[in-house]
Amino acid sequence: MESKLIRNLRRRLPPHRLLCLGPGDDAAVLSMANAEECVVTVDLLMDQVDFELDKIDVRRAGRKALAVNLSDIAAMAAKPIAAVIALALPRSGGLDLATKLYDGILPLAETYDVAIAGGDTNSWDGPLAISVTLIGSVTENGTMRRSGAKSGDKILVTGSFGGSILGRHLDFEPRVNEALRLNERYDVHAGIDVSDGLSVDLLHIIEESGCGALVDVSAVPVSKDAERLAERLGNRMTPLQHALTDGEDFELILAVPPSEAIRLLADQSLGMEVAQIGEFVDDLGMWKIDESGERAPMIPMGYQHRFD
Amino acid sequence: MESKLIRNLRRRLPPHRLLCLGPGDDAAVLSMANAEECVVTVDLLMDQVDFELDKIDVRRAGRKALAVNLSDIAAMAAKPIAAVIALALPRSGGLDLATKLYDGILPLAETYDVAIAGGDTNSWDGPLAISVTLIGSVTENGTMRRSGAKSGDKILVTGSFGGSILGRHLDFEPRVNEALRLNERYDVHAGIDVSDGLSVDLLHIIEESGCGALVDVSAVPVSKDAERLAERLGNRMTPLQHALTDGEDFELILAVPPSEAIRLLADQSLGMEVAQIGEFVDDLGMWKIDESGERAPMIPMGYQHRFD
Repeated sequence: MESKLIRNLRRRLPPHRLLCLGPGDDAAVLSMANAEECVVTVDLLMDQVDFELDKIDVRRAGRKALAVNLSDIAAMAAKPIAAVIALALPRSGGLDLATKLYDGILPLAETYDVAIAGGDTNSWDGPLAISVTLIGSVTENGTMRRSGAKSGDKILVTGSFGGSILGRHLDFEPRVNEALRLNERYDVHAGIDVSDGLSVDLLHIIEESGCGALVDVSAVPVSKDAERLAERLGNRMTPLQHALTDGEDFELILAVPPSEAIRLLADQSLGMEVAQIGEFVDDLGMWKIDESGERAPMIPMGYQHRFD
Repeated sequence: MESKLIRNLRRRLPPHRLLCLGPGDDAAVLSMANAEECVVTVDLLMDQVDFELDKIDVRRAGRKALAVNLSDIAAMAAKPIAAVIALALPRSGGLDLATKLYDGILPLAETYDVAIAGGDTNSWDGPLAISVTLIGSVTENGTMRRSGAKSGDKILVTGSFGGSILGRHLDFEPRVNEALRLNERYDVHAGIDVSDGLSVDLLHIIEESGCGALVDVSAVPVSKDAERLAERLGNRMTPLQHALTDGEDFELILAVPPSEAIRLLADQSLGMEVAQIGEFVDDLGMWKIDESGERAPMIPMGYQHRFD
């Protein structure tokens, strides 16, 4: 029953210094902690699209639903504050399912100091859908955006790419703290998180910035998962192709001026891998320097929801 | 295709003075307009639960998805600012469906000066689900909450009740402006909007306030829809029973001290019907004075999502 679930959840939710009024009223009341601007993002995750409930520990699905939103907030270099969570639960087993989803959500919320401010719990004859909306505050360093990359800026990326479908798409660590640190210390011109795929998300930066990108493909950090996945699929695509086109790495792509890029790449105290994979250029479009050193057009590929 | 839909939508969304960065980045950036506190609420609406897409004009479903959230913000007497919208679209016909949903959403957003700050558009093999999260600002008069009703306070309601399933549940006008006006002019102790049903939502007030309620059932405004519905269903329930237990009237229930209630009920400039239907009492629980003038326990009934 809905009321039983809501009572159970309210008991489990910890207090939060910015949550003036938590779940149990018509809306939550949040203190904005003197922030003049906030960021807000929403992601709706669905069974058999974003995860397969019949094959995984349900807690990982709950964790992912919050984590993808944290990654969006990271891409803006904002500080997460509070989330509201809406569930469409299958009628059979819905109570147990909701409890396990929150088992995955709550520890991650605690790690990133996110208040669970409220929610909406529903049942229906359809499969599970879970919508998380995350609100964050803009720091004194401003936001990182997709627009702002300039010709000559270096293309930097965190982590490595490809093959996240083997498990990392559920268990990745959103780059929240890393983004805040990078934005505080360096003059980052633009940024995005990789959800659709490295090449497609790089395309989003150049489209919004009005420039082109030249990628040195030999410098792209290819994850071990990309190698494993390529092998598992019979090497129809190379590990590099997986790195460029697989989705859900949830790493950051950054546009950074050359002198800043040198400082940043030498900064051992960032506590993460950062690699330079090319530069932004005047020529509109996407270009690559391939393994033979030739410049050639690059076709961005990645995940798109398809419907007609 | 997702990218085509998003391009079309971005073109249609008007600018808004508080929207520093709209759809098209990883998160939207909102100015908080110097508000120290904000309210946030989410509702997830589903095909065949909250509306029947095969039987109605799709625009009404879109409108409802925003309107129910506006009603929640009204129940807090807050001022709506911005919404983010997440869609799970069936693969077949999804593009057309999304366009029509926004045809219903955008005019209502304009009426209530709500910025459409962003969204998430997905496709799947399931039915339509639409999640709207609404952010509002708390005014200098503070929020109206479910807690705060005191023994002796009068129970006031706006509008009339019952039979909203005949159409009003889709086309109702959320009481946003009325709530702001009431909260500005009068000392309202508690408030809620009627989504689950008049008696159940009154129960929510007394549970959160720690008091009881005595309802003079002969004073409950029964809508013409309640009469029509009772007749259509062969008078298994009276129109009054429909008024007390049907959901989705989206009217307000208020707890107001007696002297304020007298002033409020005499205020012709409010521009709406307000009726006094009883009072809050010390005795915990819900009570009614029935048609014969006797006091008797009242069983709250209304809508609950059922799952096991």
